[in-house]
Amino acid sequence: MKVVADLCIVPMGVGPSVSPYVKEIKAIIDASDLTAEMHANGTNIEGELEDICRLIEMCEAKLSNLGVQRVFFTMSFSSRRDKKQSMADKLAAVS
Amino acid sequence: MKVVADLCIVPMGVGPSVSPYVKEIKAIIDASDLTAEMHANGTNIEGELEDICRLIEMCEAKLSNLGVQRVFFTMSFSSRRDKKQSMADKLAAVS
Amino acid sequence: MKVVADLCIVPMGVGPSVSPYVKEIKAIIDASDLTAEMHANGTNIEGELEDICRLIEMCEAKLSNLGVQRVFFTMSFSSRRDKKQSMADKLAAVS
Amino acid sequence: MKVVADLCIVPMGVGPSVSPYVKEIKAIIDASDLTAEMHANGTNIEGELEDICRLIEMCEAKLSNLGVQRVFFTMSFSSRRDKKQSMADKLAAVS
Repeated sequence: MKVVADLCIVPMGVGPSVSPYVKEIKAIIDASDLTAEMHANGTNIEGELEDICRLIEMCEAKLSNLGVQRVFFTMSFSSRRDKKQSMADKLAAVS
Repeated sequence: MKVVADLCIVPMGVGPSVSPYVKEIKAIIDASDLTAEMHANGTNIEGELEDICRLIEMCEAKLSNLGVQRVFFTMSFSSRRDKKQSMADKLAAVS
Repeated sequence: MKVVADLCIVPMGVGPSVSPYVKEIKAIIDASDLTAEMHANGTNIEGELEDICRLIEMCEAKLSNLGVQRVFFTMSFSSRRDKKQSMADKLAAVS
Repeated sequence: MKVVADLCIVPMGVGPSVSPYVKEIKAIIDASDLTAEMHANGTNIEGELEDICRLIEMCEAKLSNLGVQRVFFTMSFSSRRDKKQSMADKLAAVS
């Protein structure tokens, strides 16, 4: 299922500043084949839900290697059957 | 990756009342092997992230068969490495 | 605006176990006038959005007093104009 | 309480395409005093939680005037006490 997702990954238990961890996550997302764009509260990712889930597991494994024992994730996404719509299409439709 | 997820599925474009669709989704979740409990705003599901994603795709396919062309989903979940924790454990820890 | 909200409060930077903090939050919510029900991943709260926001600020202030310097919140909610619908009504409609 | 929020507003029951409604919401947000930036899945907004809640109510009222009887909202946000951090600061910290 193709989706446009908004993913937010919150490392828990490692202090209030999490930017070093977010940088590592960003590197994993950038190295993937998925179209992604980071914003101030998360990352928009376009792709098959299955591939995004695999990416999430890679991010969690990396965080675990860095000592993060608990991770909180939020993801919202929509799927549509009436037409194909990319992240760029979504933004263009409301500009 | 084992997670405890809070899943909310929002059928779009089919009127303000969506309970007939939610009933169909509930039937699919109940028929699955995953531990799940519905609440007023969604469903808590315990299982492998991969299995939950597969369940989401089944729900979307069913909604599509029923004429829903666009579906919005929100899912939050956490994973932890320091100990195993089920939905029941989470509730017991704060009671 | 009357809403039925699903609220999740995530204390950051204080270790992987956050149940002592969640208990304090639960006490604040229970002491309020709002109808609320905790579940494995959050709390459903029924009330005016304004009152729920005030409750969120009280929870954040309490967590700050307990030494939590950063808190992550997720809240999803819906409003409807076609009819009144409580949390109990929502559950009854799909049972 | 100052927060950086990710807000997503989903008009329900008005067909799969909601861009005309999102344009109206964008106009309301742009006309406000709050710092905001739209992305493919929502809008990042920086400000007092109270002001953001008031903005949400204005958006819901506008949608109601346009015939939308039910609206689903998701909002995630974080507050921090250890330092001030704007949306721009958040992005700069991970670039």
